[in-house]
Amino acid sequence: MRAVVYAGPHQVSVQQVPDPVISDPEDAIIKVTLSAICGTDLHPYRHEVPGVDPGTVLGHEYVGEVVAVGQGVRSFRVEDLVLGSFFAACGRCWWCRRGDHWQCESRAAFGYGSAFGEYLPGAQAEFLRVPHADTVLCHLPPGCPAEAAVFVTDVLATGFVAAERADMRPGDTVAVMGGGAVGQMASMACQALGAAAVVVADPLASRREMAAANGALSVSPGDARAVLDDLTENRGADVVIEAVGGAGPLESACALVRRRGTVVAVGVQFEATFPYPVARAFAGELSLRFATGNSIRVRDRLLRLVTSGVLDPTTIVTSRVKLDHVPGAYARFAEHQEVKVLVCNS
Amino acid sequence: MRAVVYAGPHQVSVQQVPDPVISDPEDAIIKVTLSAICGTDLHPYRHEVPGVDPGTVLGHEYVGEVVAVGQGVRSFRVEDLVLGSFFAACGRCWWCRRGDHWQCESRAAFGYGSAFGEYLPGAQAEFLRVPHADTVLCHLPPGCPAEAAVFVTDVLATGFVAAERADMRPGDTVAVMGGGAVGQMASMACQALGAAAVVVADPLASRREMAAANGALSVSPGDARAVLDDLTENRGADVVIEAVGGAGPLESACALVRRRGTVVAVGVQFEATFPYPVARAFAGELSLRFATGNSIRVRDRLLRLVTSGVLDPTTIVTSRVKLDHVPGAYARFAEHQEVKVLVCNS
Amino acid sequence: MRAVVYAGPHQVSVQQVPDPVISDPEDAIIKVTLSAICGTDLHPYRHEVPGVDPGTVLGHEYVGEVVAVGQGVRSFRVEDLVLGSFFAACGRCWWCRRGDHWQCESRAAFGYGSAFGEYLPGAQAEFLRVPHADTVLCHLPPGCPAEAAVFVTDVLATGFVAAERADMRPGDTVAVMGGGAVGQMASMACQALGAAAVVVADPLASRREMAAANGALSVSPGDARAVLDDLTENRGADVVIEAVGGAGPLESACALVRRRGTVVAVGVQFEATFPYPVARAFAGELSLRFATGNSIRVRDRLLRLVTSGVLDPTTIVTSRVKLDHVPGAYARFAEHQEVKVLVCNS
Amino acid sequence: MRAVVYAGPHQVSVQQVPDPVISDPEDAIIKVTLSAICGTDLHPYRHEVPGVDPGTVLGHEYVGEVVAVGQGVRSFRVEDLVLGSFFAACGRCWWCRRGDHWQCESRAAFGYGSAFGEYLPGAQAEFLRVPHADTVLCHLPPGCPAEAAVFVTDVLATGFVAAERADMRPGDTVAVMGGGAVGQMASMACQALGAAAVVVADPLASRREMAAANGALSVSPGDARAVLDDLTENRGADVVIEAVGGAGPLESACALVRRRGTVVAVGVQFEATFPYPVARAFAGELSLRFATGNSIRVRDRLLRLVTSGVLDPTTIVTSRVKLDHVPGAYARFAEHQEVKVLVCNS
Repeated sequence: MRAVVYAGPHQVSVQQVPDPVISDPEDAIIKVTLSAICGTDLHPYRHEVPGVDPGTVLGHEYVGEVVAVGQGVRSFRVEDLVLGSFFAACGRCWWCRRGDHWQCESRAAFGYGSAFGEYLPGAQAEFLRVPHADTVLCHLPPGCPAEAAVFVTDVLATGFVAAERADMRPGDTVAVMGGGAVGQMASMACQALGAAAVVVADPLASRREMAAANGALSVSPGDARAVLDDLTENRGADVVIEAVGGAGPLESACALVRRRGTVVAVGVQFEATFPYPVARAFAGELSLRFATGNSIRVRDRLLRLVTSGVLDPTTIVTSRVKLDHVPGAYARFAEHQEVKVLVCNS
Repeated sequence: MRAVVYAGPHQVSVQQVPDPVISDPEDAIIKVTLSAICGTDLHPYRHEVPGVDPGTVLGHEYVGEVVAVGQGVRSFRVEDLVLGSFFAACGRCWWCRRGDHWQCESRAAFGYGSAFGEYLPGAQAEFLRVPHADTVLCHLPPGCPAEAAVFVTDVLATGFVAAERADMRPGDTVAVMGGGAVGQMASMACQALGAAAVVVADPLASRREMAAANGALSVSPGDARAVLDDLTENRGADVVIEAVGGAGPLESACALVRRRGTVVAVGVQFEATFPYPVARAFAGELSLRFATGNSIRVRDRLLRLVTSGVLDPTTIVTSRVKLDHVPGAYARFAEHQEVKVLVCNS
Repeated sequence: MRAVVYAGPHQVSVQQVPDPVISDPEDAIIKVTLSAICGTDLHPYRHEVPGVDPGTVLGHEYVGEVVAVGQGVRSFRVEDLVLGSFFAACGRCWWCRRGDHWQCESRAAFGYGSAFGEYLPGAQAEFLRVPHADTVLCHLPPGCPAEAAVFVTDVLATGFVAAERADMRPGDTVAVMGGGAVGQMASMACQALGAAAVVVADPLASRREMAAANGALSVSPGDARAVLDDLTENRGADVVIEAVGGAGPLESACALVRRRGTVVAVGVQFEATFPYPVARAFAGELSLRFATGNSIRVRDRLLRLVTSGVLDPTTIVTSRVKLDHVPGAYARFAEHQEVKVLVCNS
Repeated sequence: MRAVVYAGPHQVSVQQVPDPVISDPEDAIIKVTLSAICGTDLHPYRHEVPGVDPGTVLGHEYVGEVVAVGQGVRSFRVEDLVLGSFFAACGRCWWCRRGDHWQCESRAAFGYGSAFGEYLPGAQAEFLRVPHADTVLCHLPPGCPAEAAVFVTDVLATGFVAAERADMRPGDTVAVMGGGAVGQMASMACQALGAAAVVVADPLASRREMAAANGALSVSPGDARAVLDDLTENRGADVVIEAVGGAGPLESACALVRRRGTVVAVGVQFEATFPYPVARAFAGELSLRFATGNSIRVRDRLLRLVTSGVLDPTTIVTSRVKLDHVPGAYARFAEHQEVKVLVCNS
């Protein structure tokens, strides 16, 4: 089959690779009908992720049709329309039983090489092998657009999990650091959960416009404090979601949160340590919580919200491309010219 | 001053009554600038509430300006713009300390005679005495329209409390029995809190249209089951909010909720007992929870939501009248020709 | 194999029945080393449960050793020591994904005939077939006594779920209606979760003594109100757990709960309706919640509590018998001479 | 009156100071019958707290009898027996309304000079002026020993708040860094809330013995990891409570918590920043939350727990002294020869 393959720093190409096969009774093979390029795909693209070697098939967001199932798969049959999760989890271990699938003892992430568990080829391809299919896959609900469902497999789940991890309450004022796809989804999720106001901070005007079109107030990072002060009688944000990664945005996030407030960080942190403002955190009784998306736990609810139209994540799609044009889309993405790219196989 | 006075069954009139005076150091006197007629005002109007005798000043939703304060009042000064709560509570007893102000040991409700505690004249008047002013009143936030704030003093708080009492979660499918003002507010509150769908059931077409205009699906009561089944793979509503009162609507509510689901009843129950379907409740692990609005506990959050425009309760206003025209509005209300009437003193 | 079989009203006998066999790839067969007689076993014994026909193998609490597994079982191997759940659930449906396994679309209860789903022979036997073994079974943790673990498979889980369903908070005063095994477990669970006081009401002195020995205050039902009033400044219990079943105890439970409090009913309700005191419930904003135990959801936590010794359910064991003596134990149980009987196969 | 006064680094003395007087209508004056020396009193003693100048009356834990009230005080009368809180809060501002009294806009701490708000003389004295008495004071419940109640005014509340802030769930394994008074209280609180095991780490054998006598497992700090690994199948603690302060213990706390787990830090942090292990926190989805005790919010529940005897904090009392002997007790405390000293005025 054809697939998008990491070919070295800043290089991806569409190559012929072996078709996936059932290698475990719990596997399913799906024909990918729709996948996506995610901001986190740029980390391997930029060669920032140890464990992603040339030849790795990329991509981890996908909707498709089941074409083969192992004999241990109970919930799915050939021809079922499904969505998945950006990672595989067993569904049975101590972590999975708690709903903490991302910490599953046999977790593996699609399209990240061996960075987050055993190697699993990615979803920017014609076909995909899905381990633990009964846990990882989910039926596409009647009436749910595939383009909305593909967001549920990762990026919308991540935004929603961030809001949930913050114990965001109705009436809260929220700040989101970063207007990339995860930041946009966090903004939408917080609005759906009853935020009184969401302030999205991003240096790019195009992303600020996108956030504003989706109901947020949007500002340059340097203006965030003043806007939040105005909204909160100078207390600061009840909740700050850090959706960029790295030390700078995390520091900004900590500076914007009010006393007793919570910073949730979903952006990637590569540095070993961060100089956390601990005296201020002590005085202000702050919380700093990290979270990674977990579509498996939250998708039943998210699918209802996208099916009924309460959430429409497709408003952030900037391009729809065929598999052959994915390399060009990566290049544009790396230049900040894209927020979300859908890859349409059919 | 002039005030709306209960004058016997189905009779209200505007009469001259004594001006209120400070009778306790914690009292404030406010000049009422805006009040409202609430569906529950029809209970005394219909002579259904023991304790409401002729001569009782009616009304319990109000926004105003402070014109006098007792020497024990710390948070308010003359000329402050304020909203209140439909009942007074001390702020200090075991119940108030828990946030259960409606059960306060010295609770008294405005405009209900002695039905819910000591007699307090109502707010459909030129002036109002507010006991425990530091607890009962709240500053009108900058930017918050008075017409929205008046909803926070009772009916929007009741709708919100219903959603909260149900532990409604994002993605839930909610049914609301009744499209009166409380039902409309419950619908809005559930949507603001992330319901995937809200189905409002009411026999009146005009109320169904109002609910639909505010984002709900609306149906005749007899059609509710079919619509909910369609939305939930035949499970029924995750949450049902009963906002009419009496046995019939409560029975319907219990019939619409799914297994493990919750019915929250905010409608008035006058009968001593109700034949609760206990075998079904046991098999389906149902919850039935009663709740009364508590604006004191929830208004900080609600005011942020109405100030930012996330919630706009004014869309259900069907009339705006001067004090002199309140009697006519009661008559129309009793004929189901009104949903929410604002009484504008200025 | 030999098994305890329902032989008609008030008759059980030990009979030779066919050995269970693997009939589905997800099945496991366990050699039962320890089972128990539960108060709910008396319902079929008294012929109160439609669907339990003569010939039904009884029993639903069990610990054992795996002796065979279907090819779809991943978490267990022959010789593993395991405990189970009193019912089987698929682990994959909408209900199971939420942690509401008791409502599983393919739920079946061991030893209840066809009363709660498809017929599953019971655990008071030498061997047991366990469907959906990966979901229903659980490894016996190192250091966990089998006699404690057998409680986790039903009755302790039920007591714990009752406390959880009540949202019992540290410092609460709890009343438990009934000092049978479930009531005793509810008492222990509430104490473990931080109740300030638990009052167990039972007409039998022996059960009151047992409750007292396990840390509760215990009273005759008629004295409960006075004791609770004394503990709560006359407010009543924050939480009442009804662990008997039927209308009388439920009515008592509703009479003991304070305003804003919660009644959780885990006792069986056979009548279609119950005259719920709805005017009082409205005035006092009461909650009435039904719950059935769900060992699958809560056992990871319970096993830690029994392994560390924080909870010791074995203090309520009144007899330990061999399989041959189970009929006599049923007879004593029906005469209220037993609270908990363990059936030791080895 | 006589009072314990900070007299310079490592020096306290009992001096004659002016009697407190009502200076605001919401003030009460209490005759202190019982106060205590807290570990945090050693911070001013060691001259570590800017804002504590010589002449400052020390102490912030107290039980007493009301001897005078301002005319705005409603809940208390002369001769009432009361306990207080280690800090004063208004009860009316945005923070107080949320239950976040420690962040009150007019917060002031007793006995800390101007370190945490306006100067308030401390409680190690014959009399104490208590501002906002209706909010700060609380009646001593019938049957509640004064010696237990004095713990509720600070140190037990702090331990309880730590457990609460961690969202500690029944069955959790908890590690507590530090066996001082707060650590001991956190250990007790976590046990009362259903921890399966609490591991207290302290270098002092005497504190480990005290923790063990109160139900914890206790270890030298270097052994904590091994003990926790043994309890948790090598996952680490579900919750870690840091009750020492400073960077070292916080670093240890972060090293002991499992993935998805929570560190709650209640120890004082004087340094501006702390090198938080952010890559590990990202990978493990950790939470770090700071908290300060808030007796005002939690004491209703704690008083029930100490009155019923579920919690007995007095087991950690190492000395009971008269006011005149307080200086000697400070010296012993500074040498780690005391854990909790009660100061008995009568």
